[in-house]
Amino acid sequence: MNPDLARFSVNQMTVKQLSLPELTDACARLGITHVGLWREPVQAYGVEAAAKLVRDAGLTVTTLCRGGFLTATDPVERAEALGDNHAAIEEAAALGTDTLVLVSGGLPLFSKDLHGARERIADALAVLAPYAAERGVRLAIEPLHPMYAADRCVVSTLTQALDLAERFPADQVGVAVDTYHIWWDDQAPAQIARAGAAGRIHTFQLADWTTPLPQGVLNGRGQIGDGAIDMREWKGYVESAGYTGPIEVELFNEELWARDGREVLAETAERFLTHVIRQGA
Amino acid sequence: MNPDLARFSVNQMTVKQLSLPELTDACARLGITHVGLWREPVQAYGVEAAAKLVRDAGLTVTTLCRGGFLTATDPVERAEALGDNHAAIEEAAALGTDTLVLVSGGLPLFSKDLHGARERIADALAVLAPYAAERGVRLAIEPLHPMYAADRCVVSTLTQALDLAERFPADQVGVAVDTYHIWWDDQAPAQIARAGAAGRIHTFQLADWTTPLPQGVLNGRGQIGDGAIDMREWKGYVESAGYTGPIEVELFNEELWARDGREVLAETAERFLTHVIRQGA
Repeated sequence: MNPDLARFSVNQMTVKQLSLPELTDACARLGITHVGLWREPVQAYGVEAAAKLVRDAGLTVTTLCRGGFLTATDPVERAEALGDNHAAIEEAAALGTDTLVLVSGGLPLFSKDLHGARERIADALAVLAPYAAERGVRLAIEPLHPMYAADRCVVSTLTQALDLAERFPADQVGVAVDTYHIWWDDQAPAQIARAGAAGRIHTFQLADWTTPLPQGVLNGRGQIGDGAIDMREWKGYVESAGYTGPIEVELFNEELWARDGREVLAETAERFLTHVIRQGA
Repeated sequence: MNPDLARFSVNQMTVKQLSLPELTDACARLGITHVGLWREPVQAYGVEAAAKLVRDAGLTVTTLCRGGFLTATDPVERAEALGDNHAAIEEAAALGTDTLVLVSGGLPLFSKDLHGARERIADALAVLAPYAAERGVRLAIEPLHPMYAADRCVVSTLTQALDLAERFPADQVGVAVDTYHIWWDDQAPAQIARAGAAGRIHTFQLADWTTPLPQGVLNGRGQIGDGAIDMREWKGYVESAGYTGPIEVELFNEELWARDGREVLAETAERFLTHVIRQGA
């Protein structure tokens, strides 16, 4: 283990070109001890096999991404979404992570009712949160950048995420603090304090904001240090709020995916040291 | 004049394929009496000539877009920006509009300091607001969607825009309320009430939110009725706040620009009647 990387966690999507065995091997070589995993590649490898692989490699799974998509109005779709989230909770438990990240879902087709969609998320959390708690898993509502409000996540700010989370016990429902989604929001620092005081910061994730945004705006999350976000400032906010846990770097970036995954992982760890851990720029 | 279109204003950018004479002619044929203008095509035509053209056509100029870009740190760039805004104010006065819309500007290259950039906007407004007032022009700070915070406008919410505007008299500095930029924000209705109570709603603009967003996210503003925004709901908010002025439709949309401009203008007026003015959906 590299002591300077003690809090570093690499989200699997950052280097999705690596298979799970390649990822665990590359982590071992670089002294990385935390990973965040995604359901699809874990399912493709086999949940139990993936759990054994990361356990044998001495890796801690910081989060599983992702549950959610809880805004459907159609009863059949709602039942399917709840069933899928029950499965996600079971997968999180099997992988030994305590945190399932939720991307809440966008507006149903032709709907213009953001408020109603947010209320349906609360209804779903009332079902899912106790189910997760019984399995040792916390739900982390991730506010996504407002540019995703229509088609991906109607929860656009930490304020909204906490308004939802606070209807439930803190050890059941908290929030995901991701710099990419909240960096523009001058109310976010106070909301981080609010979340921290209640023990609701369930994960802290980093990506940088680079422009121009790509078509569809999904896969343009910048490498740490390449964009507009002061990572030390946000680390300071979560630490002042009492968060001392892992810091997960989660990048969706076509250019990074086109490169050698091991090289990208080494670069990401180096950027983390330079822009997050070490003093000075 | 079409009485159902009494409050409709077409922003020139919506049909930028039309020359100014084509635009004024098309407005006359459709009974449209309000236009919002942009500096670049007005300058290309000649400011005085454009003023005469719209005056002779019986058109009221609801806004001039746009001043702003006030966030530079370099003294030369700042002086240039102030000079350009002085010119914009004079152009607005020449065109007979009382409102100059400001797009405040993004972060300077390599800067990560949103707060500092917002303060530099306030410094510039202290210079520009009295200059504008002397010429009968009000400045309207337009919060742009948070996806533009880095490269175009560090003012991302109505709350931030009003925090800036309220440092100045209401008849000098107000806000532009544009559905495209604020529709996701559950705090915006209360901020519209705040703006209206102080007489700071200086323009109300419409565009719909459609996905997927195009590369660069500039030119994907949806035709009214095509997207996720409930236009009547937002019209209700500004009217409850006391705003009874023109409603300007401002679309940046490559697909609309590729079509016949007169056809797009007629369609836009019809969408305005269907989705904004008439009862029912």
